[in-house]
Amino acid sequence: MERVAIIGSSMTQFGQRDAWVLDLLSEAGLECLEDAGVDASDVEHLYVSNMASGEFEGQTGVMNALAQDIDAVPAYTQRVDQTSSSGGAGIYAAWQSVASGASDMTMLVGGEKMTHKTTGEATDVIASLTHPAEYKHGVTLPSFAGLTARHYLERFDAPRESLAKVAVKNHKNGVDNPKAQFRKEVDLETVLESPIVADPLRLYDFCPITDGSAALMLCPESVAEEYTDEYVVISGIDGATDTHVVHEREDPTVMRGVVESGEGAYEMSGRDPDDIDVAELHDMFTILEFLQMEGLGFAEQGEAWKLVEEGYTERDTGELPINTSGGLKSKGHPLGASGVAQAVEIYEQLMGEAGPRQVDADVGLTCNVGGFGNCVITTIMEAAQ
Amino acid sequence: MERVAIIGSSMTQFGQRDAWVLDLLSEAGLECLEDAGVDASDVEHLYVSNMASGEFEGQTGVMNALAQDIDAVPAYTQRVDQTSSSGGAGIYAAWQSVASGASDMTMLVGGEKMTHKTTGEATDVIASLTHPAEYKHGVTLPSFAGLTARHYLERFDAPRESLAKVAVKNHKNGVDNPKAQFRKEVDLETVLESPIVADPLRLYDFCPITDGSAALMLCPESVAEEYTDEYVVISGIDGATDTHVVHEREDPTVMRGVVESGEGAYEMSGRDPDDIDVAELHDMFTILEFLQMEGLGFAEQGEAWKLVEEGYTERDTGELPINTSGGLKSKGHPLGASGVAQAVEIYEQLMGEAGPRQVDADVGLTCNVGGFGNCVITTIMEAAQ
Repeated sequence: MERVAIIGSSMTQFGQRDAWVLDLLSEAGLECLEDAGVDASDVEHLYVSNMASGEFEGQTGVMNALAQDIDAVPAYTQRVDQTSSSGGAGIYAAWQSVASGASDMTMLVGGEKMTHKTTGEATDVIASLTHPAEYKHGVTLPSFAGLTARHYLERFDAPRESLAKVAVKNHKNGVDNPKAQFRKEVDLETVLESPIVADPLRLYDFCPITDGSAALMLCPESVAEEYTDEYVVISGIDGATDTHVVHEREDPTVMRGVVESGEGAYEMSGRDPDDIDVAELHDMFTILEFLQMEGLGFAEQGEAWKLVEEGYTERDTGELPINTSGGLKSKGHPLGASGVAQAVEIYEQLMGEAGPRQVDADVGLTCNVGGFGNCVITTIMEAAQ
Repeated sequence: MERVAIIGSSMTQFGQRDAWVLDLLSEAGLECLEDAGVDASDVEHLYVSNMASGEFEGQTGVMNALAQDIDAVPAYTQRVDQTSSSGGAGIYAAWQSVASGASDMTMLVGGEKMTHKTTGEATDVIASLTHPAEYKHGVTLPSFAGLTARHYLERFDAPRESLAKVAVKNHKNGVDNPKAQFRKEVDLETVLESPIVADPLRLYDFCPITDGSAALMLCPESVAEEYTDEYVVISGIDGATDTHVVHEREDPTVMRGVVESGEGAYEMSGRDPDDIDVAELHDMFTILEFLQMEGLGFAEQGEAWKLVEEGYTERDTGELPINTSGGLKSKGHPLGASGVAQAVEIYEQLMGEAGPRQVDADVGLTCNVGGFGNCVITTIMEAAQ
């Protein structure tokens, strides 16, 4: 079967935006068309990754509105929701649309508009993805993160500082990303002394609430070659669920969705963890970067923190740079956009277009986590030039 | 490429249900597994067609909850939203998941829970799919239907009674569908004297607000043959948008999404309108049955009403029975479930399992309309036994 290529990408400024989600989607969509050199009338399928425009704005049907706004009618549209991994699910949907032969040119645009809500209102929308039995007891996503972090630190004898170092690293990377929400370095002391949110995790262990959009253009490799000599292919992709009721999992430090989707993506691509040159992981909470490093085979269980301490995941000096974009931590986390933006970063790295963030990479990986690992999508991308 | 087969189906009782959407999805999902003879652990992809569980219930992530409820973890899940055509979009997503080789066993479950809301609250959620510029002027979906119906009747010199006859026919068919919300015949006089909603359309020209769920099991034909000797294949499927701003369309009686998705489905299947033996059309409003008959080539523009008057679409005596299930009009319209339930009816007809509703059919078609034709999915199914 012919491979699926990515021939263009875009990302709006992330942060607090004076625009509705449709404006953000249109901005990213139009920029992606231009970046790929594709005419809107050639787009056959248009997927929109978005968790909750209805809840955030009282506006649904944004995928149909987008088709008209960017002049892509009568392209087929669909909204993809997989909560906080809607972006990764969108990549999988777009990949399937091309790989099945249904579309020879598919654009994926992910976006979310959140900052017009108070933090309480926004977290209420996000918390609606948890199981009612847990939600009613107040166990929201940050609570799960705090409980898991405490367990991890004690069980694996890891220092609290190792978690803070994830935040320090990702903030440092974000300084060089002009699209990131926060472009400022933070030191270890700042993280460790920030207000407690879910003990032992503090404010700087959490990603912010963000507005933003990102887009990718996908097509069969044979079509890609009509547009460009240099492109990226998706060599592996898979998604998997874990129990929706988080407390029913056997080991709180193992995210089954990460493990299973990673195994699927490695198998499909013929790659293994050692082949990965750069990765974007879903650092919604610092502890998640450890769990994904271990679930994806970059570290043994309970040992990811050592690699972080050793500088293994640093951008300029590490063996496996993680979250060169700044991650969700510094770049921001507009739910439906995040998984797409992860792939935009890897695309730019593989194309050699990452500017001051550039690392040496031929093979990259993204891992997008829905809920607290309730569903996870892992994607492996490779330079094809 | 190998064809995609349907090997099982299910549908819950439609109507006013004392259950949340997750309960309805689980009920349909478990019944579909049993009908197909498939173990939950063999389901690789699980798609949930649902427009608005967040808005209706304050509950999102239902696809992940469903995976656990029916014991399908770690199956990949995704929620498919295409407003009122979410069910049809789910069929397209499930088809792509199998046709792309990503999954050898995909279950699609569509569902919506609406009746706990007042009619005003429910229509507010539905109206959120329209363009704000039109919505602010009060032009909701029923208004579009009324305006279009008035235009159609005057332009094509069609009698008001012809629209009412759609409702009479579909109610008559629904009497024989034990899962339908309304199982009672209505006469022409009742329809014509029911309260005006959007002149010239009256209460009985509209489908009700409904709770319900429906499911399908899809797999490659080679896998289907391991499970059963008799199955159905999806021989053609396509989706297309029209302008999101309805008043910008050139001809209000032509739904471009219907025309384009129909052409795509016919071309893929090698079929034409004359080959279709039975069809489920999206009769959210009676006028829509005319527009789809014409857009899909069953009638010339402006002449569908004549076929209805002649009895061409009657179940037991007509040449092309339309909405043998009772249609949205009598069966009910739980948004995310409706497109799936249309395919469930065609599946049962092609399998010879439609009981008192059975017609003689080898090739069937479904047309699922999102918004006021903002996005439409047409599917052609054929008996493969």
